Amino acid sequence: MTDTPTLALAKDLISRQSVTPVDAGCQNVMIERLQALGFKIEVMVFEDTTNFWARRGTEAPLFAFAGHTDVVPAGNLELWDTPPFEPTIKDGFLYGRGAADMKGSLASMVVAVEQFIAQNPNHKGSIGFLITSDEEGPFINGTVRVVEALMERDENIDMCIVGEPSSTEVVGDVVKNGRRGSITGDLTVKGIQGHVAYPHLAKNPVHQSLMALNELAETEWDQGNDYFPPTSFQIPNIQAGTGASNVIPGELKVQFNLRYSTELNNDMIVKRVKDTLSKHNLDYQLDWTFNGDPFLTDTGDLLDAVVTAVGDVNQTKPELLTTGGTSDGRFIARMGGQVVELGPVNATIHKVNECVKIDDLEKLTNMYQKTLENVLA
Amino acid sequence: MTDTPTLALAKDLISRQSVTPVDAGCQNVMIERLQALGFKIEVMVFEDTTNFWARRGTEAPLFAFAGHTDVVPAGNLELWDTPPFEPTIKDGFLYGRGAADMKGSLASMVVAVEQFIAQNPNHKGSIGFLITSDEEGPFINGTVRVVEALMERDENIDMCIVGEPSSTEVVGDVVKNGRRGSITGDLTVKGIQGHVAYPHLAKNPVHQSLMALNELAETEWDQGNDYFPPTSFQIPNIQAGTGASNVIPGELKVQFNLRYSTELNNDMIVKRVKDTLSKHNLDYQLDWTFNGDPFLTDTGDLLDAVVTAVGDVNQTKPELLTTGGTSDGRFIARMGGQVVELGPVNATIHKVNECVKIDDLEKLTNMYQKTLENVLA
Repeated sequence: MTDTPTLALAKDLISRQSVTPVDAGCQNVMIERLQALGFKIEVMVFEDTTNFWARRGTEAPLFAFAGHTDVVPAGNLELWDTPPFEPTIKDGFLYGRGAADMKGSLASMVVAVEQFIAQNPNHKGSIGFLITSDEEGPFINGTVRVVEALMERDENIDMCIVGEPSSTEVVGDVVKNGRRGSITGDLTVKGIQGHVAYPHLAKNPVHQSLMALNELAETEWDQGNDYFPPTSFQIPNIQAGTGASNVIPGELKVQFNLRYSTELNNDMIVKRVKDTLSKHNLDYQLDWTFNGDPFLTDTGDLLDAVVTAVGDVNQTKPELLTTGGTSDGRFIARMGGQVVELGPVNATIHKVNECVKIDDLEKLTNMYQKTLENVLA
Repeated sequence: MTDTPTLALAKDLISRQSVTPVDAGCQNVMIERLQALGFKIEVMVFEDTTNFWARRGTEAPLFAFAGHTDVVPAGNLELWDTPPFEPTIKDGFLYGRGAADMKGSLASMVVAVEQFIAQNPNHKGSIGFLITSDEEGPFINGTVRVVEALMERDENIDMCIVGEPSSTEVVGDVVKNGRRGSITGDLTVKGIQGHVAYPHLAKNPVHQSLMALNELAETEWDQGNDYFPPTSFQIPNIQAGTGASNVIPGELKVQFNLRYSTELNNDMIVKRVKDTLSKHNLDYQLDWTFNGDPFLTDTGDLLDAVVTAVGDVNQTKPELLTTGGTSDGRFIARMGGQVVELGPVNATIHKVNECVKIDDLEKLTNMYQKTLENVLA
């Protein structure tokens, strides 16, 4: 049995060792296929990151696929049953780093577009591809820079499918129609260093901070809403002390991260944290990193088209969720269009023996193609 | 002007670079002087540490001086006005590492004994010297081992002056007649590691612990007593997290230290900490290090002799305190005798430009000599 077009392309992409931010020629493979379809290609290199923007057509609406060619490192090779960069088929699954996140999606997108254009050479609107090699890394020179370049010239994406592995049991059982926001605070509480034998001459910033941190950890930030779970606060890192057991530390460093719903925004979070710290009379410095606003696509042509397409393939409608980590969808949403995420089952992503069901790749190709038909045919 | 015997000996000792646990010949200098006075010398080397025990006489009571020849490192040499191991006299002060902690005391002890024996060759009881080169280090192979060896053969010190720098403004203004106990707890609170985007699948040990730690930090352990300030609890070290902002840590490590009065003992502290942690339903492991029981010499011949001697020299009585860090006095107190600490002003110890007032060295020699007269003449 020869490989289907989607499987063949997925295998080609997996065989290229494109660990963030290396692209390893993946984008050229995609570019050749898209050029043959009449796409206009724009390669955008920012620092160490290769990206490209491709567009077929000049009319609105502009529908785009978005994704990344980079993968996370393979980790300990001895834990893999097969070499991570040698695509291997076993028991109906395709194994390899990036099989599910997200070279399988990229292959499905390209083939879906090829099949759609073969049947609809004169489709409505425009089709775009926004592809980066920096989604798994610091996401500084990837999608966010391409989005900035496009927005600067008013070339805004109206509808976008991000190929992130959104599914949990079978492909299409979950479509992500939004993501929570993420904000990180780096807090330094200042005390006075001293000898533990002379506590009256020192001020222990750990002791000073415990109640304030507890109040932040126990705060009910919101109750969520129909689309978002309640905002959550977590302390991923805390550190104070020189290691010596007889020195009262001079400062405490605490990092916290909030994943927040559309009920809140950055400013509200910053204010509530500052109010809490000030209420407890802490002498502190606080630096914020804004990782992304929450976004939500709760109605519109795109969501209708995706839900219908998935329903046609699976005979059952997808669940719409906003849970999970951040994705590049948050950057694309800044353009003001509709953004959803639809991709393979995410059970093995970032793990050893990452894999995707071969049947799911064909279904995903169909879902993407039917979405295109629903929107642009 | 020629140097007094005490100043000359102090300079000789300071010129030897005896950074813990190195003795650099200091003990040999003392041993030669003591042998000439009829002391029987016993050198006790344990691992990397040189100690000696010297005794003149066989009768009771056994009065001993205790101290250490090792010093803390000089640190950044550029911050010193004069080379730390070149004893330098300036404006009535003797500068050099160890001048106050405690080579000045060692010189005063030796000269005091020389002068006392010259006038009282047939003194009552016995005089001892318990000298180590491991007081500033891990104190594993120093005084504690010598004390064990002496106790094994029932050679218990009845009265002991430790030459630690006890004074704050002028020599003899403070005599330490006890020290607080010290106990260190290493706590590991176990949670469940996870991704911050999925807090319901994880359990953050930092969040779990905040209230329990706050309760420990705010506990009134006791109210102290006539001789001891209230017991204090401090968290010198705390750490959790991988450094990544998106990972909920799997465990929290907290170290705490208590300096406690004679109102408490180790067992009472261990029980109260465990009760508090259990009340907050923490899953934890807790390892204890017992650094030393509190000790107190509140009455007796020694304290009377020292207070009288200091009063004779200074025309004012010393203040009796138990504050400050631990010292080797805690080990000597295990023998059941009376232990006090009397030494130079501690303002510059462990700092750059460590120094001692030359007049104070002479006064300290007098105080030691008069104490000997009060006890053994």
